[in-house]
Amino acid sequence: MIDRRQFLKTASVLTASAMVTSTSANSTTATTHSTSNLFSTDVAETARDNTRASYRIIALVFDDYETLDLHGPIEMLGHMPHAEIKLVAASAIVKSYQGPRVVADGSLDNTYPCELLLIPGGIGTRKLVNDAQLLRWLSQQVTVSQKVFSICTGAALLAKTSVLNGYKATTNKMAYQWVTSLNAQVLWQPKARWVDDGPFLTSSGVSAGTDAALYWVKQCHGIDEAKRIQTLTEYHWIEDADNDIYATLT
Amino acid sequence: MIDRRQFLKTASVLTASAMVTSTSANSTTATTHSTSNLFSTDVAETARDNTRASYRIIALVFDDYETLDLHGPIEMLGHMPHAEIKLVAASAIVKSYQGPRVVADGSLDNTYPCELLLIPGGIGTRKLVNDAQLLRWLSQQVTVSQKVFSICTGAALLAKTSVLNGYKATTNKMAYQWVTSLNAQVLWQPKARWVDDGPFLTSSGVSAGTDAALYWVKQCHGIDEAKRIQTLTEYHWIEDADNDIYATLT
Repeated sequence: MIDRRQFLKTASVLTASAMVTSTSANSTTATTHSTSNLFSTDVAETARDNTRASYRIIALVFDDYETLDLHGPIEMLGHMPHAEIKLVAASAIVKSYQGPRVVADGSLDNTYPCELLLIPGGIGTRKLVNDAQLLRWLSQQVTVSQKVFSICTGAALLAKTSVLNGYKATTNKMAYQWVTSLNAQVLWQPKARWVDDGPFLTSSGVSAGTDAALYWVKQCHGIDEAKRIQTLTEYHWIEDADNDIYATLT
Repeated sequence: MIDRRQFLKTASVLTASAMVTSTSANSTTATTHSTSNLFSTDVAETARDNTRASYRIIALVFDDYETLDLHGPIEMLGHMPHAEIKLVAASAIVKSYQGPRVVADGSLDNTYPCELLLIPGGIGTRKLVNDAQLLRWLSQQVTVSQKVFSICTGAALLAKTSVLNGYKATTNKMAYQWVTSLNAQVLWQPKARWVDDGPFLTSSGVSAGTDAALYWVKQCHGIDEAKRIQTLTEYHWIEDADNDIYATLT
């Protein structure tokens, strides 16, 4: 159980201004991470009052992440009942490949128990697959995440840990050779808009993540809720995971 | 012509840390705005060397903007040759309706000459249609923007100025009654995924902006470039502006 004092302390420390004035939010010596909470309700409150339970979504962000990998799923998941979405990064502010910057709500000094962990892709993953500290954090964060959802080359980061071994997964089709070369123990799927296998939901490139996010809304709340969000966003949802016109033939 | 010293001064002032430590980036007394530049090349450099010309995109952001209204177009436009995208807001950091926060690159104290001005929508526009200072800035920013692209209820903000009068435009279909009630002199189109009329490109709700952005890539660089970005993002592009399954019947 997360101590309420710890939650309040963490929440106050991790305001944007505090993180921005810090030269680095990331310890270079830590090998294990303390567990923290970024959300408006803590575990004790949730247990007492189910109506206040939030659906906690943590998204890893990093420099040169691909914009839509992150914000497509955030759009759809953010309309789910009780969804709360927080960004976690190695630095206070990170810049997308397309330029605009986002503010991290939490650092990699902690792990955050959550219902859903988002891992976007992008050109930034080419560097991060060799970042031992990031991969160590990711391995630990996965253990406190009920479901792990990678988009595009976000699967490359998972593949560089051992957590995906033995599971079916997919990734961006233009980066398919590179990602799949990172780990032969993953059961890579060359034709799939997304793959849902056990604790892992992995989507194909960029916009596939938005379709997979609506699929996940359906899994959590049923088709009516997914359709409500689809209509609200005037979206043309690819509902079938097997509809992959960008499939690679390998 | 923008003075290079002014550009450098503005660029250094508008770093994230400087804006974050400021209590307000927005003057409450200004009635006119000085012109500034947020981009890596200034006008003089562009004139000397066309290969370095950037396609300058300014996006207005505000609290409770709708995530995909902004980031869908940013995804597509950000892959255009020489695109540079900067966010402008009344405060240093703004929070989307879905929760995550973005960092403003510029304030509303200035206007920014650009090739494309993005105006996302979202629940935050309900308050902003009554914000005289914001509307004054918007009216002036439009005069230094070659093309103005609103997404969803972003059209409500344009409608509250007089700039859209006499032009065809559209907006979110679930908020259609509200937006169109703001200005009867706009030639509102109840059935259109997007409308391109003169200096204004206005799209329907949320995800329609992503389709309209690819349309704009096509207008600027041709269909091959739009298809290249579509493939890169594994996107299912609604290419036809008349394909509006969410059209309202009013």
